[in-house]
Amino acid sequence: MFTIIAERLNMTRSRIREEVWKRNTEYIVEQVRIQEQAGATHIDINAGGDPSREVEDMKWLTQVVSEATLLPLCFDSSGPQALQAGLELCCRPGTIINSITGEKNRIQGILPMVQSFGTGVVCLTMDDQGMPEDLEGRLRLTRHLACMLQENGIGLDRVYFDPLVRPASTNPGQAHYILETIRTAKHEFPESHIALGLSNISFGVPARNNLNKAFLAMLVAAGADGAIVDPCESGMMNALFSSRAVLGLDEYCMEYITAHREGKL
Amino acid sequence: MFTIIAERLNMTRSRIREEVWKRNTEYIVEQVRIQEQAGATHIDINAGGDPSREVEDMKWLTQVVSEATLLPLCFDSSGPQALQAGLELCCRPGTIINSITGEKNRIQGILPMVQSFGTGVVCLTMDDQGMPEDLEGRLRLTRHLACMLQENGIGLDRVYFDPLVRPASTNPGQAHYILETIRTAKHEFPESHIALGLSNISFGVPARNNLNKAFLAMLVAAGADGAIVDPCESGMMNALFSSRAVLGLDEYCMEYITAHREGKL
Repeated sequence: MFTIIAERLNMTRSRIREEVWKRNTEYIVEQVRIQEQAGATHIDINAGGDPSREVEDMKWLTQVVSEATLLPLCFDSSGPQALQAGLELCCRPGTIINSITGEKNRIQGILPMVQSFGTGVVCLTMDDQGMPEDLEGRLRLTRHLACMLQENGIGLDRVYFDPLVRPASTNPGQAHYILETIRTAKHEFPESHIALGLSNISFGVPARNNLNKAFLAMLVAAGADGAIVDPCESGMMNALFSSRAVLGLDEYCMEYITAHREGKL
Repeated sequence: MFTIIAERLNMTRSRIREEVWKRNTEYIVEQVRIQEQAGATHIDINAGGDPSREVEDMKWLTQVVSEATLLPLCFDSSGPQALQAGLELCCRPGTIINSITGEKNRIQGILPMVQSFGTGVVCLTMDDQGMPEDLEGRLRLTRHLACMLQENGIGLDRVYFDPLVRPASTNPGQAHYILETIRTAKHEFPESHIALGLSNISFGVPARNNLNKAFLAMLVAAGADGAIVDPCESGMMNALFSSRAVLGLDEYCMEYITAHREGKL
């Protein structure tokens, strides 16, 4: 089982922002439908188009999306008000808050909601000192967040680490730190999950999809059991099925063979 | 720099066998040309169609291929006579013998040629006890072969390890052993190389190419600096360029961007 948090409904993207502001239900429902059909396990909702409208937009999106699918949602905001607004409308089993960090304010604002709503939570490896570039910083924050969450009653099976990918074009060699952070996290905290927003790796290069697919294969080999990704992106689900087949996570390649037979690859 | 030993000219494939036996120069030259154009650094020649004709076929193939390209060849046989026949006709800088193992007979027959012709050599992780299935067996043989070759005057920069891939469909989980063997080999013997025949991973599944590409990305992330592969296989060079870009081996993604601009991806 691989967690696929489908990322298309993000109002920092201009097209989504426009359609939400037009209250275009049909368009949003279609985005949900194609992501679910492609294999999404969660639908991410980011209503961060305009801070002054985020709460209203989150409510509208949550209403529309929750009527379009039975999948759990992933509420994506740094603001407790927007998260609260979404969670009050829809909090199915498997719901995830995206995200907490090591920042004091963020913990104060968001941790109580993880506790009271009993959700999963994406943990970004950053804190009030910033986003560490190196391996040591990412590992330090991963361990710190794991301890802090456990001390506050959050089981690690509800935790999804995202060790914050930077673009390969400007940060050469940083992918190795990500892969090593994942290996370490899965080794030290085997119950925890990974939900890495991977597409940032290809920022600034042409035909980004090629890098995204190669990176996904590496992530799965390193032990990642989830990603924040667009499952409709050409070849991404193929890369996922293929990687799991290669690694024996899909025993005897039966999931791969079935997906191939059904024309999904 | 990634070593791409192009594998199409293998007489265990029926089409190649037929064309060699017809002495179809044009067809063979075309296979060389397309592999070189796709990015081959070495052209593998396997004349193992019929043992009684292997030496003659190796001579003919070597003649034809060496006139069609300036690339170094990779002579692929378990038989010293065929290897000797090829090497006497063409032994450019970079030439590789494919392959030696830990088997006593194979060492006795082939090691002297590696020494006298000064070639590189592919080392398979097998010996007279067979091919180990597990990680420990592969590591034991890797270390044994590295020591044995060094004791016989072969610098590790001439050594290309192939930790013998089995099909994912029948050996689930074995890819992890391969990746860990590569990480260990590159860590303990950093001067040595990897030249893994990767396509066996996908034996028995449909659309094999999907698994081959995903596996290649994982291999590059594990530290492989070469593979025995068909560079003309759809998407393989794309997966290689993309993987190197992701990992910062292609600094600032310039090779990837150039390949994209030239329409090679």
